[in-house]
Amino acid sequence: MDSMTLIAVASIVTAGFTIAFGVIGPALGEGRSVAAALSSLAQQPDAAVTITRTLFVGLAMIESTAIYCFVVSMILIFANPFWNHVIEAAGK
Amino acid sequence: MDSMTLIAVASIVTAGFTIAFGVIGPALGEGRSVAAALSSLAQQPDAAVTITRTLFVGLAMIESTAIYCFVVSMILIFANPFWNHVIEAAGK
Amino acid sequence: MDSMTLIAVASIVTAGFTIAFGVIGPALGEGRSVAAALSSLAQQPDAAVTITRTLFVGLAMIESTAIYCFVVSMILIFANPFWNHVIEAAGK
Amino acid sequence: MDSMTLIAVASIVTAGFTIAFGVIGPALGEGRSVAAALSSLAQQPDAAVTITRTLFVGLAMIESTAIYCFVVSMILIFANPFWNHVIEAAGK
Amino acid sequence: MDSMTLIAVASIVTAGFTIAFGVIGPALGEGRSVAAALSSLAQQPDAAVTITRTLFVGLAMIESTAIYCFVVSMILIFANPFWNHVIEAAGK
Amino acid sequence: MDSMTLIAVASIVTAGFTIAFGVIGPALGEGRSVAAALSSLAQQPDAAVTITRTLFVGLAMIESTAIYCFVVSMILIFANPFWNHVIEAAGK
Amino acid sequence: MDSMTLIAVASIVTAGFTIAFGVIGPALGEGRSVAAALSSLAQQPDAAVTITRTLFVGLAMIESTAIYCFVVSMILIFANPFWNHVIEAAGK
Amino acid sequence: MDSMTLIAVASIVTAGFTIAFGVIGPALGEGRSVAAALSSLAQQPDAAVTITRTLFVGLAMIESTAIYCFVVSMILIFANPFWNHVIEAAGK
Amino acid sequence: MDSMTLIAVASIVTAGFTIAFGVIGPALGEGRSVAAALSSLAQQPDAAVTITRTLFVGLAMIESTAIYCFVVSMILIFANPFWNHVIEAAGK
Amino acid sequence: MDSMTLIAVASIVTAGFTIAFGVIGPALGEGRSVAAALSSLAQQPDAAVTITRTLFVGLAMIESTAIYCFVVSMILIFANPFWNHVIEAAGK
Amino acid sequence: MDSMTLIAVASIVTAGFTIAFGVIGPALGEGRSVAAALSSLAQQPDAAVTITRTLFVGLAMIESTAIYCFVVSMILIFANPFWNHVIEAAGK
Amino acid sequence: MDSMTLIAVASIVTAGFTIAFGVIGPALGEGRSVAAALSSLAQQPDAAVTITRTLFVGLAMIESTAIYCFVVSMILIFANPFWNHVIEAAGK
Amino acid sequence: MDSMTLIAVASIVTAGFTIAFGVIGPALGEGRSVAAALSSLAQQPDAAVTITRTLFVGLAMIESTAIYCFVVSMILIFANPFWNHVIEAAGK
Amino acid sequence: MDSMTLIAVASIVTAGFTIAFGVIGPALGEGRSVAAALSSLAQQPDAAVTITRTLFVGLAMIESTAIYCFVVSMILIFANPFWNHVIEAAGK
Repeated sequence: MDSMTLIAVASIVTAGFTIAFGVIGPALGEGRSVAAALSSLAQQPDAAVTITRTLFVGLAMIESTAIYCFVVSMILIFANPFWNHVIEAAGK
Repeated sequence: MDSMTLIAVASIVTAGFTIAFGVIGPALGEGRSVAAALSSLAQQPDAAVTITRTLFVGLAMIESTAIYCFVVSMILIFANPFWNHVIEAAGK
Repeated sequence: MDSMTLIAVASIVTAGFTIAFGVIGPALGEGRSVAAALSSLAQQPDAAVTITRTLFVGLAMIESTAIYCFVVSMILIFANPFWNHVIEAAGK
Repeated sequence: MDSMTLIAVASIVTAGFTIAFGVIGPALGEGRSVAAALSSLAQQPDAAVTITRTLFVGLAMIESTAIYCFVVSMILIFANPFWNHVIEAAGK
Repeated sequence: MDSMTLIAVASIVTAGFTIAFGVIGPALGEGRSVAAALSSLAQQPDAAVTITRTLFVGLAMIESTAIYCFVVSMILIFANPFWNHVIEAAGK
Repeated sequence: MDSMTLIAVASIVTAGFTIAFGVIGPALGEGRSVAAALSSLAQQPDAAVTITRTLFVGLAMIESTAIYCFVVSMILIFANPFWNHVIEAAGK
Repeated sequence: MDSMTLIAVASIVTAGFTIAFGVIGPALGEGRSVAAALSSLAQQPDAAVTITRTLFVGLAMIESTAIYCFVVSMILIFANPFWNHVIEAAGK
Repeated sequence: MDSMTLIAVASIVTAGFTIAFGVIGPALGEGRSVAAALSSLAQQPDAAVTITRTLFVGLAMIESTAIYCFVVSMILIFANPFWNHVIEAAGK
Repeated sequence: MDSMTLIAVASIVTAGFTIAFGVIGPALGEGRSVAAALSSLAQQPDAAVTITRTLFVGLAMIESTAIYCFVVSMILIFANPFWNHVIEAAGK
Repeated sequence: MDSMTLIAVASIVTAGFTIAFGVIGPALGEGRSVAAALSSLAQQPDAAVTITRTLFVGLAMIESTAIYCFVVSMILIFANPFWNHVIEAAGK
Repeated sequence: MDSMTLIAVASIVTAGFTIAFGVIGPALGEGRSVAAALSSLAQQPDAAVTITRTLFVGLAMIESTAIYCFVVSMILIFANPFWNHVIEAAGK
Repeated sequence: MDSMTLIAVASIVTAGFTIAFGVIGPALGEGRSVAAALSSLAQQPDAAVTITRTLFVGLAMIESTAIYCFVVSMILIFANPFWNHVIEAAGK
Repeated sequence: MDSMTLIAVASIVTAGFTIAFGVIGPALGEGRSVAAALSSLAQQPDAAVTITRTLFVGLAMIESTAIYCFVVSMILIFANPFWNHVIEAAGK
Repeated sequence: MDSMTLIAVASIVTAGFTIAFGVIGPALGEGRSVAAALSSLAQQPDAAVTITRTLFVGLAMIESTAIYCFVVSMILIFANPFWNHVIEAAGK
């Protein structure tokens, strides 16, 4: 059962670690984008439509990197192939 | 019982670690966004509606990355599949 | 009793660690927001109402990330499911 | 008695660590807010009342994150449920 | 079975680590690009077409580096040649 | 006697560590506040009364975070409940 | 089989590490370049052709450093001479 | 005698560490304050009295945080209650 | 065979490490150069020929430092004299 | 003799460490103060007397924090109460 | 053969490490120089000859520090006196 | 002889460490002061005498912190009381 | 032979480390100097002779610190007195 | 011979370390000074004599801190009193 425990511990620690460090970059990047959008709106209110549209495309792009981390984190908790393999091997 | 303890310790440490490091980025990003919103409001009070709306969409987007961390943290404490498996295995 | 001690130690260390690191981001983010609000007030005193309202919404949003950490910290000290499980198992 | 000592050591180290790292963010955030308030006062002395009021609300908000840390630190020293449990268990 | 466990643990930890650290750079880089695009739009709304097109080409280029990390992370979880080899060797 | 020594060592190291790291934030925050006050005084000497008053309130607030650390440090050296418990237990 | 496992673990960890750290520099560098290109386009829309061409040459140059890392990472996973040697030695 | 040595070593290392790290913040904060005072004096020589007075109050406040560290450091070397206790216990 | 494995592991880890850390500097340096080139082009489009030429010479110079790392990395994987020596010694 | 050696090693390492890290802050703070004094002198040569006097008071204040470290370092080398105690105990 | 392996491993790791860290400084320094050259060319195209000449002398000077690292790295791989000594000693 | 070796090793490592880290702060502080002096000379050549005199006093003050480190480093190599004690004890 | 191997490994690692870290400072410092020289040339082409001469003296001075590191690195590889001593002792 | 080897290894590692870290500060400080000198020359070519003289005095002062490190490094390699003592003790 040692092997199962090790894999479980590694999955738990990595899942948390992945999402915790993985959101630092996106959150800062999005904060910078939103801040720039607000300054731009204040400077050129007439271009609000273009600015808002570009902002949302950009945020979606940056958010996608956070979602990569979330996906890997979820896979490690709920669809971990290594865990499934040891469970199956143990169940045999 | 060693295996159960190890998984419990890993879950506790990771849950705290995940949310503690996971909020650094979002909090700084939101702080920057709010600061930019306030400067923009002072510069162009007439565009208050557009600025506030864009700010709230942006904050929601950034907050979402903090919520990913909170979700992973809560899953590790209250709905941990690895813990459930060892409890069940022990209860058998 | 070793397993109980390990879980207790992990909970104590993680609870302190979570709140200690978890408030760095929110505190800096709020400091930045308040500083921006004060500069904006000095620049455009007429927009005081809008600025103050936006500031309070923003502070609440940022404070929420600190509260996530506080909640996890309190759960680990006073409502720790892993601890409850080992206490119960020991009491049996 | 080993288990008691370990919990005591963990509580002592975590209590100090929590407050030591927990005040870095708030202290810097408050320093920034106060600095911005003073610059704003120098720039717009007429808005002194609004600026001071907003400053105090903001400082209270930021101080609250330092107080979370102080509360956790005090709980770990004077109302530690894990310590109480082992003392009680030992006293039995 | 020790060798299998070690490879599984290494794959899990590395997969999470790779994507968690790998998105920090791209997310910050994209945040900077989007911020510059928004400032440019506010400054020169007439050049919106050129700016938006250049932005999207640039974002795709930067995103590609995040995708390298995601690809390596997925290979390590789902198409790991070292894991396949030990599974096959064990199955023989 | 081993348990007593461990608690003593932990208390000594933590007491020093707490105050050493705990004053970094407040000292920098106060330095920033005082610097801003002096610049403000030079810019608007007429507002000296308001500026000085706000500065002192702010410094008191920031100093309070340093005092939290000093209090925890002193408690750990002179009123440590864990130490008192082991001394008492040993004296019995 | 110990030697094979060690080489496999080293290859897995290094492959992930190489690409994870290797993209930080290029992603930030490309972000800076794209940001400068967009500012330049806003400042001098007439020079769009020269700016875009120089940008693409520069991005290709910077991307090349990320590709070095990707190549090394792929070699370590799929064409690792050390792994091939031990496999071959084991197969003999 | 082992317990005495451990406490002595911990006290020596902590005393040095406390003062070494504890003066970084105050020294930088005071440097910043003095620099701001000198710039202010150059900008507004007429306000020299107010500026100098505020500077000295501020320096005293910042110096106080360095003195907390010095006090803890001296207590650990010359009035260490844990050391006194083990000496006394050994002398009995 | 232990000696061979150790050298293989060291070569694998170092090869990845060398290129991963080795491209951070060049990528950032090239990003800065390209950014400066683009700003210069926007400011002085007439000097495009000189600017582009100087940029390419500079990029080649900076790229050369990344290539040193790539060369060392490739030597360690494909033309490692230490590995060749132990293989030869083992083959004897 | 083991206990004596340990205390000697701890004293040597701490003495060097204390002064090495303890002068970083004061040296940077003094550098900043002197730099500000020189800029102020260039800007307002008539206020040279006040500026120089304030500079010297400030430098003395900052130097005092470096002297705390030097004092602790000298105490640890030449007037170490823990060393004296073990020497005396060994001489008995 | 242990001694030989240790020296080989140390040489491999150090060779990679030396060039990987050794190029960070030069690459950043060259990037800064090239960026300054390009800005200068845009500002003063008439001085192109002097600027380019000074740039190339400066780049050669900075590149020399990267070449020191490359030389040490190559010596460690291909002309390592310590390796030669142990090979020779082993061959005797 | 073990005790002597340990003290010698500690003295050697600490002596180098002390001066290596101890000069970072003073060198940067002096660099800043000299840079400010040169800018001031360029701005106000008439005040050259006052500027140069203040610069030299300031440099002497900053250099003094580097000299503290050099003194401690020399004491540890050539007048180490702990070394003298063990030599004397060994010579008896 | 163990002692010889240890000294060889220490010399190899230190030689690489010394030059790798030793060139970071000089390379950045030279980059800064060259950049400043180029900006100055663009600003005041008439002073080209004085600027270039001062630059070369300065670069030589900064390069000297890199050469100290190179000299120590070469001494450790080719004229290491400790290695010579053990070789000689072994040859006796 | 173990004691001799340990002292030799410590001397080698410390000698390299001392000069490698010791030149970072001086190199950056000198780079800053030279950069400021060149800007000042461009701004005020008439003050070239005073600027150059002050620069050389300042560079000599900063270089002195690098020379402290070089001296300690050379003492540790060629005039190490601890090494001489063990050699002499071994030769007896």
